[in-house]
Amino acid sequence: MTTTPRHSVYLSKRGNSIRQHQGILQEGFILYGKDKHHDTDNPDGIINMGTSENKLCYDLLHKRMTKPDMLHIDPSLLQYPDWRGHTFLREQVAKFLTHYCCSPNPLKADNVVVMNGCGSLFSCIAAVICDPKDAILIPTPFYGVITEDLHLYSDVKLFHVPLDCETDGKNGRPFHLTVGNLEEGLKRAKQEGLIIRGVILMNPHNPLAEIYTPEEMIAFLQFAKRNELHAIIDEVYMLTVFDESVTFHSVLSVDSSLSHNRELVEALAQLGSFHGISGTTQHQVAQLLQDREWINEEFLPENRSRLKASYSYLTGELQSMGIPYLDRPTALYVWADLRKYLRESSFEEELSLWRRFLKHKVVLSCGQAFSCSVPGWFRIVFADQQHHLHLGQFRMRDALRQLEEKSISPDSHSVKEASEESKKSVREDSTDSDNATIVNSTSSPQSKSPDQLREKDIPVPSTGLMATEDFVLLDCQASKPAESLDSLIGTLRHQIRSSDWLEKNTPELSAGEDPEILDVFKALLQRARK
Amino acid sequence: MTTTPRHSVYLSKRGNSIRQHQGILQEGFILYGKDKHHDTDNPDGIINMGTSENKLCYDLLHKRMTKPDMLHIDPSLLQYPDWRGHTFLREQVAKFLTHYCCSPNPLKADNVVVMNGCGSLFSCIAAVICDPKDAILIPTPFYGVITEDLHLYSDVKLFHVPLDCETDGKNGRPFHLTVGNLEEGLKRAKQEGLIIRGVILMNPHNPLAEIYTPEEMIAFLQFAKRNELHAIIDEVYMLTVFDESVTFHSVLSVDSSLSHNRELVEALAQLGSFHGISGTTQHQVAQLLQDREWINEEFLPENRSRLKASYSYLTGELQSMGIPYLDRPTALYVWADLRKYLRESSFEEELSLWRRFLKHKVVLSCGQAFSCSVPGWFRIVFADQQHHLHLGQFRMRDALRQLEEKSISPDSHSVKEASEESKKSVREDSTDSDNATIVNSTSSPQSKSPDQLREKDIPVPSTGLMATEDFVLLDCQASKPAESLDSLIGTLRHQIRSSDWLEKNTPELSAGEDPEILDVFKALLQRARK
Repeated sequence: MTTTPRHSVYLSKRGNSIRQHQGILQEGFILYGKDKHHDTDNPDGIINMGTSENKLCYDLLHKRMTKPDMLHIDPSLLQYPDWRGHTFLREQVAKFLTHYCCSPNPLKADNVVVMNGCGSLFSCIAAVICDPKDAILIPTPFYGVITEDLHLYSDVKLFHVPLDCETDGKNGRPFHLTVGNLEEGLKRAKQEGLIIRGVILMNPHNPLAEIYTPEEMIAFLQFAKRNELHAIIDEVYMLTVFDESVTFHSVLSVDSSLSHNRELVEALAQLGSFHGISGTTQHQVAQLLQDREWINEEFLPENRSRLKASYSYLTGELQSMGIPYLDRPTALYVWADLRKYLRESSFEEELSLWRRFLKHKVVLSCGQAFSCSVPGWFRIVFADQQHHLHLGQFRMRDALRQLEEKSISPDSHSVKEASEESKKSVREDSTDSDNATIVNSTSSPQSKSPDQLREKDIPVPSTGLMATEDFVLLDCQASKPAESLDSLIGTLRHQIRSSDWLEKNTPELSAGEDPEILDVFKALLQRARK
Repeated sequence: MTTTPRHSVYLSKRGNSIRQHQGILQEGFILYGKDKHHDTDNPDGIINMGTSENKLCYDLLHKRMTKPDMLHIDPSLLQYPDWRGHTFLREQVAKFLTHYCCSPNPLKADNVVVMNGCGSLFSCIAAVICDPKDAILIPTPFYGVITEDLHLYSDVKLFHVPLDCETDGKNGRPFHLTVGNLEEGLKRAKQEGLIIRGVILMNPHNPLAEIYTPEEMIAFLQFAKRNELHAIIDEVYMLTVFDESVTFHSVLSVDSSLSHNRELVEALAQLGSFHGISGTTQHQVAQLLQDREWINEEFLPENRSRLKASYSYLTGELQSMGIPYLDRPTALYVWADLRKYLRESSFEEELSLWRRFLKHKVVLSCGQAFSCSVPGWFRIVFADQQHHLHLGQFRMRDALRQLEEKSISPDSHSVKEASEESKKSVREDSTDSDNATIVNSTSSPQSKSPDQLREKDIPVPSTGLMATEDFVLLDCQASKPAESLDSLIGTLRHQIRSSDWLEKNTPELSAGEDPEILDVFKALLQRARK
């Protein structure tokens, strides 16, 4: 593991603080950077299921980005630009957002500022709407790097509004954000003497992959307006929805009365020179954005379909391991509940589990990196090629299996009771509401009332096998028999180690499944019975 | 002209300050951005001689940058990178600098941090070596945008060490920097209670185009070491020297004992995500840097030759107008003394002259934008295509001619005396030393002792015409007769308006000159005599 560097006399107090800063996400990314998995050159290297990158469509991007129109050099692309972004790019962005966000009024290029990353945008916005030590509200869990984005340069704090991982009975969604949460957070922040200048919302959410309904978003905006707060809405995952029955509603579509804050744009433009994008890249991005045929006919459909397949695979695996997760048909990751693998409910234990995964050469992101208020949740990125996903998944299983072996070995610290305790706590939690932390894969938060949601969210197994433990759910709408069998083996693996499952259950196998997998399955059964 | 925006209730105090910030350089750049000259689409638009960009080699860059090796897409180029820059690029930068800076020891890629601009580097360095309100020493004049680079995000001040535009007799170089200047500045800063953490030096200098000798640079570094200051050396113009007899010595060549500050690199890496360059651009830059054949056989020789030609043209024009300037065979600009055009020695007058140029659709950079301590100096960028340079020059002349017409018209404010005063002051100044502010074009600061410099710097006209006023120099080693005649006409134009030059002088015309130009010249003479 990396160690915290010592104080350097060559740096200022601020410089030392910047240098010594090390979040868990950064630590994982750095370790991964030093030992990246490569199919042939470094097969034992780390599989990255911790960084939210879409690695599914490089073939499509490669094909499009090596077309001749990408290789364009114009003197103006090699000169100092308009620091808000070249006009040609801002115009394309405005058109793109008008279209894909269903904005009732066309966006103007003059209201668009393009920078070299979301981190830069957060840093700039914080600098111009906040003074040093001011704060911005954010519901937790949230994409943890925003903490550094706001703090490192701009010295702005985030004030956390913790969301409850258990449902409250009124609404079936765990980690559900309400205006009440925000009001309460704001009140508490004021009591602590903080000056709150805004609220950050992500839609689709990172790491929850939650999509807000237009009604919810309007209520959040009204909360912001009522309290004279800036509402900063990050919609970077807007085009990742991979379930056709679900519609994402951009803030640009729900509130046509949004003011276009010229002052903000002017202030951001002043900081633009620190966050500029090279002219050649601006050209390439503009070419991509304006190629609607490629976006609509090639990229988006293929991307959606691949995301959906990867998601199905990963969630199938999670189900087979009896790991609850939020079932949301968007984004690149799944928010999963690994609380049952903690020996006690603490962030030390969570970190220890994270390190265990790393030891098994797979990096995930643990909840404390997202300031989650309850230990044991992990964000697992699935947007990777199948063989990487399989290998990552295999290593995860391996790490968890070893953990379980350790916990039942007689010479190790006796954690069985703690583990039982944890299970019990989950059981009790799930008794509090009728659906616990699992939402079925056809739920669409936009299209249903809270009551309907609650009803629909009661998981209904459709095919295959359902374990009887109340926190384990299999909901395999298995289009791929091999995967459902994989899941089955996984479930089996998990169950045979610490329960009397084998005595009580007999797995049913569908016809037509790969006989080789069946052999593996049988061998596994044999080993399990030994 | 643009107006200062009013306070916005939507921004913080800092945000308002950022938004309201407007340097003269930025103002000129914004005005230029709104009304750019274009040969066909906007022939009356502004000619930019204010922004230091090399517009001379777009043809070479276009040819090289549209080669197939530039269009390379690899998944790793589309992912989150090492925020110090991709390894392949840092390796190329290290090799490049080792070679072109003549570093005795090969630089290591691990000591290289690549960011999206010099402004970003200044901002980051200031953030990690300074705490808010700390300061860094800088000799004036200096490239003015550094003020914002250090201040906007990092809240670091520059402490000015003003250089004297008159020579001190010991050394023939105006605005000459000595260790004494730095020591005195540091002392003064400490008296004011400031914490000084470093000193910024530019070599070749912007806007002076001064090149420091290795001995001078070592003395500056020793000053920094003695006083425990970081020495920040900006060598961005290192490859612009266009006189073969002059050698630039990089700080990487003169001090092999330089420490490689790992802590600094680590701290900068933490801020790297705000200043990242897209992977595709990093690839392109690496391709350029590693193509030594192209750099050495095509780009550098052609660039040098074009810079030299443009410099010759511009300085010829300046000479013809009797405008003194620093004769330095490097960089993209000339530092010129327009003090004689100020009605009084004030920065208001300087700004008024700057605005007059703008009114004539040519933007220059005035001395106060570089915190020059004496009003009346301008930086004029010459690295533009010939027809732009000609047009810019024509507009400059036009602006100055109108100014002179105004100053001698009976109903205008009588500035003749002030003007005379100013000339007198220049004359007196030049009496103080033997070479005033003009250095001849063969001077090489590196290759001569101060005494030799002094001697060599006495201007010696070689051909053509020399006006007798001691602040006007013609040193036309005219390879282009047309230009020398142009210069002649310019000088004439200038002289005929406010002196008895015509009575005293008879221009000699060389044989073989363009008869059409001769006609113009004669017509001019006629008009002048009227």
